[in-house]
Amino acid sequence: MCGVFGAFSKNGQSVLEDVYLGLYALQHRGQESSGMAWIAKNSAGCELRVTKGMGLVHLALDQKELSSSHSNCAIGHTRYSTAGGSFLSNAQPITANYSRGSVAIAHNGNITNATGIRRYLENRGAIFQSTSDTETILHLMAHQSHKPPLDALISALKTLKGAYSLAVIINNRLVAARDPWGFRPLVLGRRGETTYIASESCALDIVGATLVRDIKPGEVVVIDEDGEKSLLIPKETERKFTCAFEYVYFARPDSFLDGKSVYDVRKKLGQKLAQSAPCPEADMVTGMPDSGTISAMGYAEESGLRYEKAIVRNRYVGRTFIEPTQRVRELGVRIKLNPIGEIMKDKKIVIVDDSIVRGTTVQRVIAMVRESGAKEVHIRIASPPVKFPCYYGIDTPTSEELAAARMNIEELCKEIGADSLSYISVSEMLDAIGLPHHNVCTACFSGDYLNGGKDDELDL
Amino acid sequence: MCGVFGAFSKNGQSVLEDVYLGLYALQHRGQESSGMAWIAKNSAGCELRVTKGMGLVHLALDQKELSSSHSNCAIGHTRYSTAGGSFLSNAQPITANYSRGSVAIAHNGNITNATGIRRYLENRGAIFQSTSDTETILHLMAHQSHKPPLDALISALKTLKGAYSLAVIINNRLVAARDPWGFRPLVLGRRGETTYIASESCALDIVGATLVRDIKPGEVVVIDEDGEKSLLIPKETERKFTCAFEYVYFARPDSFLDGKSVYDVRKKLGQKLAQSAPCPEADMVTGMPDSGTISAMGYAEESGLRYEKAIVRNRYVGRTFIEPTQRVRELGVRIKLNPIGEIMKDKKIVIVDDSIVRGTTVQRVIAMVRESGAKEVHIRIASPPVKFPCYYGIDTPTSEELAAARMNIEELCKEIGADSLSYISVSEMLDAIGLPHHNVCTACFSGDYLNGGKDDELDL
Amino acid sequence: MCGVFGAFSKNGQSVLEDVYLGLYALQHRGQESSGMAWIAKNSAGCELRVTKGMGLVHLALDQKELSSSHSNCAIGHTRYSTAGGSFLSNAQPITANYSRGSVAIAHNGNITNATGIRRYLENRGAIFQSTSDTETILHLMAHQSHKPPLDALISALKTLKGAYSLAVIINNRLVAARDPWGFRPLVLGRRGETTYIASESCALDIVGATLVRDIKPGEVVVIDEDGEKSLLIPKETERKFTCAFEYVYFARPDSFLDGKSVYDVRKKLGQKLAQSAPCPEADMVTGMPDSGTISAMGYAEESGLRYEKAIVRNRYVGRTFIEPTQRVRELGVRIKLNPIGEIMKDKKIVIVDDSIVRGTTVQRVIAMVRESGAKEVHIRIASPPVKFPCYYGIDTPTSEELAAARMNIEELCKEIGADSLSYISVSEMLDAIGLPHHNVCTACFSGDYLNGGKDDELDL
Amino acid sequence: MCGVFGAFSKNGQSVLEDVYLGLYALQHRGQESSGMAWIAKNSAGCELRVTKGMGLVHLALDQKELSSSHSNCAIGHTRYSTAGGSFLSNAQPITANYSRGSVAIAHNGNITNATGIRRYLENRGAIFQSTSDTETILHLMAHQSHKPPLDALISALKTLKGAYSLAVIINNRLVAARDPWGFRPLVLGRRGETTYIASESCALDIVGATLVRDIKPGEVVVIDEDGEKSLLIPKETERKFTCAFEYVYFARPDSFLDGKSVYDVRKKLGQKLAQSAPCPEADMVTGMPDSGTISAMGYAEESGLRYEKAIVRNRYVGRTFIEPTQRVRELGVRIKLNPIGEIMKDKKIVIVDDSIVRGTTVQRVIAMVRESGAKEVHIRIASPPVKFPCYYGIDTPTSEELAAARMNIEELCKEIGADSLSYISVSEMLDAIGLPHHNVCTACFSGDYLNGGKDDELDL
Repeated sequence: MCGVFGAFSKNGQSVLEDVYLGLYALQHRGQESSGMAWIAKNSAGCELRVTKGMGLVHLALDQKELSSSHSNCAIGHTRYSTAGGSFLSNAQPITANYSRGSVAIAHNGNITNATGIRRYLENRGAIFQSTSDTETILHLMAHQSHKPPLDALISALKTLKGAYSLAVIINNRLVAARDPWGFRPLVLGRRGETTYIASESCALDIVGATLVRDIKPGEVVVIDEDGEKSLLIPKETERKFTCAFEYVYFARPDSFLDGKSVYDVRKKLGQKLAQSAPCPEADMVTGMPDSGTISAMGYAEESGLRYEKAIVRNRYVGRTFIEPTQRVRELGVRIKLNPIGEIMKDKKIVIVDDSIVRGTTVQRVIAMVRESGAKEVHIRIASPPVKFPCYYGIDTPTSEELAAARMNIEELCKEIGADSLSYISVSEMLDAIGLPHHNVCTACFSGDYLNGGKDDELDL
Repeated sequence: MCGVFGAFSKNGQSVLEDVYLGLYALQHRGQESSGMAWIAKNSAGCELRVTKGMGLVHLALDQKELSSSHSNCAIGHTRYSTAGGSFLSNAQPITANYSRGSVAIAHNGNITNATGIRRYLENRGAIFQSTSDTETILHLMAHQSHKPPLDALISALKTLKGAYSLAVIINNRLVAARDPWGFRPLVLGRRGETTYIASESCALDIVGATLVRDIKPGEVVVIDEDGEKSLLIPKETERKFTCAFEYVYFARPDSFLDGKSVYDVRKKLGQKLAQSAPCPEADMVTGMPDSGTISAMGYAEESGLRYEKAIVRNRYVGRTFIEPTQRVRELGVRIKLNPIGEIMKDKKIVIVDDSIVRGTTVQRVIAMVRESGAKEVHIRIASPPVKFPCYYGIDTPTSEELAAARMNIEELCKEIGADSLSYISVSEMLDAIGLPHHNVCTACFSGDYLNGGKDDELDL
Repeated sequence: MCGVFGAFSKNGQSVLEDVYLGLYALQHRGQESSGMAWIAKNSAGCELRVTKGMGLVHLALDQKELSSSHSNCAIGHTRYSTAGGSFLSNAQPITANYSRGSVAIAHNGNITNATGIRRYLENRGAIFQSTSDTETILHLMAHQSHKPPLDALISALKTLKGAYSLAVIINNRLVAARDPWGFRPLVLGRRGETTYIASESCALDIVGATLVRDIKPGEVVVIDEDGEKSLLIPKETERKFTCAFEYVYFARPDSFLDGKSVYDVRKKLGQKLAQSAPCPEADMVTGMPDSGTISAMGYAEESGLRYEKAIVRNRYVGRTFIEPTQRVRELGVRIKLNPIGEIMKDKKIVIVDDSIVRGTTVQRVIAMVRESGAKEVHIRIASPPVKFPCYYGIDTPTSEELAAARMNIEELCKEIGADSLSYISVSEMLDAIGLPHHNVCTACFSGDYLNGGKDDELDL
Repeated sequence: MCGVFGAFSKNGQSVLEDVYLGLYALQHRGQESSGMAWIAKNSAGCELRVTKGMGLVHLALDQKELSSSHSNCAIGHTRYSTAGGSFLSNAQPITANYSRGSVAIAHNGNITNATGIRRYLENRGAIFQSTSDTETILHLMAHQSHKPPLDALISALKTLKGAYSLAVIINNRLVAARDPWGFRPLVLGRRGETTYIASESCALDIVGATLVRDIKPGEVVVIDEDGEKSLLIPKETERKFTCAFEYVYFARPDSFLDGKSVYDVRKKLGQKLAQSAPCPEADMVTGMPDSGTISAMGYAEESGLRYEKAIVRNRYVGRTFIEPTQRVRELGVRIKLNPIGEIMKDKKIVIVDDSIVRGTTVQRVIAMVRESGAKEVHIRIASPPVKFPCYYGIDTPTSEELAAARMNIEELCKEIGADSLSYISVSEMLDAIGLPHHNVCTACFSGDYLNGGKDDELDL
């Protein structure tokens, strides 16, 4: 759950503002910290510079420094913690000047054998500055300082297991890399002489670039003054693992990932849900803002029920707005969501949401909606039950905290206080996504992991 | 365009967090500055305290001070500048300790004879600290220091022309006051022993209070340990002036103003629009996020056309996010709005918006939608043309800048690049609102002002 | 205990940096808050602007705003609270735009009838924004808005009792005013076409200006494009009240006040002390840093004893450096002062200080010096015992807290743990100062107040 | 030019405040950045924590975090840049968690073979986070991760050339280490159950500790629950290199370094100067504040001339107080120093300073003093001419910028505008210091470097 963005301009135009805007469009992928790194050319040659901070892009980055700088090669990152705690030292891009020059890395995903690699390198004298799994990539490169840096990067990538979509700067070159399984998305874009890489295509739109193609699983694209060069990391398997949860919840609806429109997938998920779990006696359909809205519209369309925007979201809700006092905890979701009572009074309501994780939000919303006078509340979830943790970069809780792992659907329905609760099946979800079924990772729904769900051992 | 909130607890419980939450729910009414004032009781008696700052509630207020304070009588304000420039000294509540005690005032609206009153008072030795029209109320009170402060307040209110919905603290009493014309909304709520006043009912929901009733035009409600007492400011006229633009655009959809649900009004506005300005050949309806969404749903429902959420809004858009460089200006609305091209490709689209003010946003969105491949773009506006400035607290531009004042509908349609453009009529709007027609202010649409649209002269 | 500075340039050169530097040189007169006000000329005419803040000059003032502004007429203030608490709203200059234009006032001193004036004005509708006595001057001016502002100022000054040395801006004129008793210093300086006013002459040195003369008691000097004009406030008495404590402690040694060198006075105070309170058996003389240093040198010179800088002061000591924990309180003065033990070992030491107020510092220093191995510690004070509070602007404590008011010299000697303790007499001090005896205020030593030591009643 | 401090308490008392106070007393050794590191014990075991920042101690350190923490083992650092630029990443202590645990290092001095070591380690995969020479020590330790950390530290120290006085935390032990030549000072102190290490003894005074002894050149002292253990780094030479400039200028006068009182040395330097370079016709002696004051007193005493504090220093002068505009540059030293004209008028003045580096300050002071009316100005320097750069931690400029390296004394006298200029000789200085001559480093005066003055080569 992170966003990466990179830009390289062949005609020397500064791309710093583009990267800033790109991160801004990827803010939904991470609000904990943000950072940018770039190559500044001055009389003394090239210098790698960086600005990082906690919080949203506009707070985290030093806008004064950015506006007084110029660079034709830059990357950026928005972070939602997966591996490594919530400290500034874990903010990305992570950077280093080593014997072969300057490197900066922005990483989306989660390296499953990072602990083993780290132990190996520390025993050989490496000093880690952060607890982030991303730093292992830098050290693997430095550990091969006899190779040219690009070779050292590819050699490092071969060592990694798990998920990584990377935007990298190596000595004034921009490099995009995606793990051989293609867990997390990564796209290539272009506007005039400038080439872009981004976690999602919506970040290309904001800078006026067009989507060229997705970076392929296992592909490394090197972008410099001479154009683009595509290299491939040798794969062990032909199976891909495109993350289903990106379509279900995580990506922005205006993005296209691996050729599929997220909006379209969500609408279809709602339609499938209406087919397999109808609720003909209901008076209206509404969506949990904002994640369930599009599927709710699909459900309404398919079922012929009326769609109402019956739950309003306070658009100024942020993460840090208020100290979590006892009173605030009691108020809970009411601080960000407010049902419009009048519409719901004495009505039978279908509420569509994208997924249930811990179950606390949906439970409180049902209570609120009942207080507002609704007669019946039927919950429809536009994905299968989430029963397994994700090891590839989505910040899901452990199994003990996952509501659908602790109880069956009937028990869960009772727990959250709904009149009925239905999900779609994994195969219905895969149909809605529309990619070949064996190329989609459904591990959090099915437990079907790349490697049996355990930490990978080191295999250098 | 401001929000006010106040709370008084009879059982001594602190209401500071409630006021904070209430302001949070009213953030849409003003993001320029925020403030709170409260009565702190300590060994030395009662003391009026205040925290104010520029920007959103959570940035503007000193949360440390609030969490270490206790008060059973507090008010707050979120400000979008109307009268007076954008300075901290104009942030509200404005406060003073004068010979009769402590006063704090939070004001929504615009006092049309403030300039005259100010000139009068300055000639008698008054020193104004701000350029805000609200400060005149304080000075009018101090000018009558021979009267008890509540009488001085009512005497001051009698002098005022124009719009004011006030939350006032006078020596440990909470006072709500609404001008005799009822321009701006003001509601009364209750939870247990605590009484609330708020610009909109959605702010009562967040603190778990129930809506008791609207404060009546010309009513002054005094809330203290002894309960509530209602007083009336003598009116010159029976006609009321409830602001139509609150329903059309300004209020939150989950609020009830003067007995009417804003959501319901907006849906009806869309339905009326579908009746009077249909577009039968269109393939789909979408709304301008977020202001046009509900009316668009009403339009789709009434017309039988498919509704799509085809334009996505970046939910992290804030006012201060980025320096307005040349590039950012060129990007314009693309930074906050992104059309989903695939859905629109080769389609005839109806876009519903709440209103057109300067016309720049709709023009750029039409261009973006056409670039995305739409075949036809039909604009439907769920209110009449805005042709006149507002003198009562909505921050509209001058007539020269109002698109619909400079040209007729045909010219405007051409200017913004639409295939067709339609509005509803004033009477259709009034029907949708559902209040008696002569009790609604439509001045910005019709030019029908309280006082002919000119600055009021002083009349002490 | 405040510093004021003002500058007016006839040739249009900006004086903002000069005022900043002047305040910097007057920092010793107040570290609680600082401020500057100036006339900014722009297309719309003249505008009064202000920057204020808590703390030292370089922290309190907005240097970015200052460096981007231009003004030929500016004043500034450094504040050590006398009347009014420690709040930003009490920081000076205080400013107002009233019916006759813009006024800014920076004030050193204390107006003894401020409370009465305030009560009078509040009953006539005035609203005070601060608790500072200085604001009464502004309101007295506004209260006479029928008069031209300069006449209103002089009329206001006639109403005041007590001490004031003022730097005032009135509509692009700079005005210096000193009360008829001349309590606090105020000097006039010049460099080229620029005229300066300052609390002390050391502030003229820093801007390269020469000292023209002292502003006379009761004089009002108006400085504008036409040059300087001197007016006189009618006096009730010929007796002056130049503050003796300025020479003893408060002013910088490189200043000249009312024609007398502070350095020279302090040296003479030490010499007189050596004559009247010798200590022939002592091995060395040292001064309490930094206030007693010069008198200690005078004492050593006159007595023939060796002078050593045996107590070292940490030059980075500031007011806010550390939270006052229990441990820090125990350490007390050791945090800022450190005796050099080796020098003092087995020696008989004379320590000269300027005065004893509460007696706590000298007590702790004596303990420290004894711990360092000194055999005898003799305290010599280069002024008479401070027994009475100051009502004219020096922030002395009440009589109960003044050590010399609570006990006689013998008791005090025992209390602080000295082997001997001596002061000089009031007449010796007056001889050292060298002004006519009846023109010096010795109230804090002698109780000889302007008005019997009580709050003055209002006399409009 | 840095200060280090460390504390370890055997009875579990927190030493964080002690370290804060110690740094405060060592502020004169570095104002660019400050930092503290400590071992925090919690349920999960021991954790190394750190707070660092730019600027003075009270600004740089997070006092809130410090006051809410508890630790019986902590170190701190105040930095004046020597090796490595002025960045936060170069602030100390530098810290790392490596395979053998946690290490934090605070370093005073300059490692002359750091560049070579760094190149060696980078070629073996090390990634440096800063440009500071201190980081090489950490990497040398990590490079020997097969050894216990204390052995790895000693092994690392053996590799180093140049100057280092270190305060180190290794896994809840405090370690003090001083290079075999003893360039920079380091002392051991004690108060009750707490042991301290400090750059200067004045920092022991502030925490109420007593000076136990100097850490010996080449000594490593390990302090933990079991008490203190002293180890020795094998030396190549018996010659020591105690820095003369510490006595001349850098250390605080209330410190004792290698058994000698700094105050006493400075006084003797002034006396020697009076003997070898008398000025019998002079009317008075004064010192350049504050560095020349004590030697000036020694000069006056020895010569029988009158001592006056004729140049006043603004005690609020800081490094960042004002933007260096053209005007400020012209004012130059006048902003911080002000001569008292009256005393100097028509007099022949001897000004004593500790040293001349670039010569600009003394030149401007002479000009100021002449403007004040002095008849003759004779400069006496209480050390030999500074002709060579320092490679051992004093931040002197290159030879081209050293005034005494560019010209002979006669030329320099003319350049600065003095009537006469005299220095003392190296052997007079050594006599005043009082240590065996061959144990004192006089490289900046004599060019007699440890290693011929060149960068040391790597010798692992």
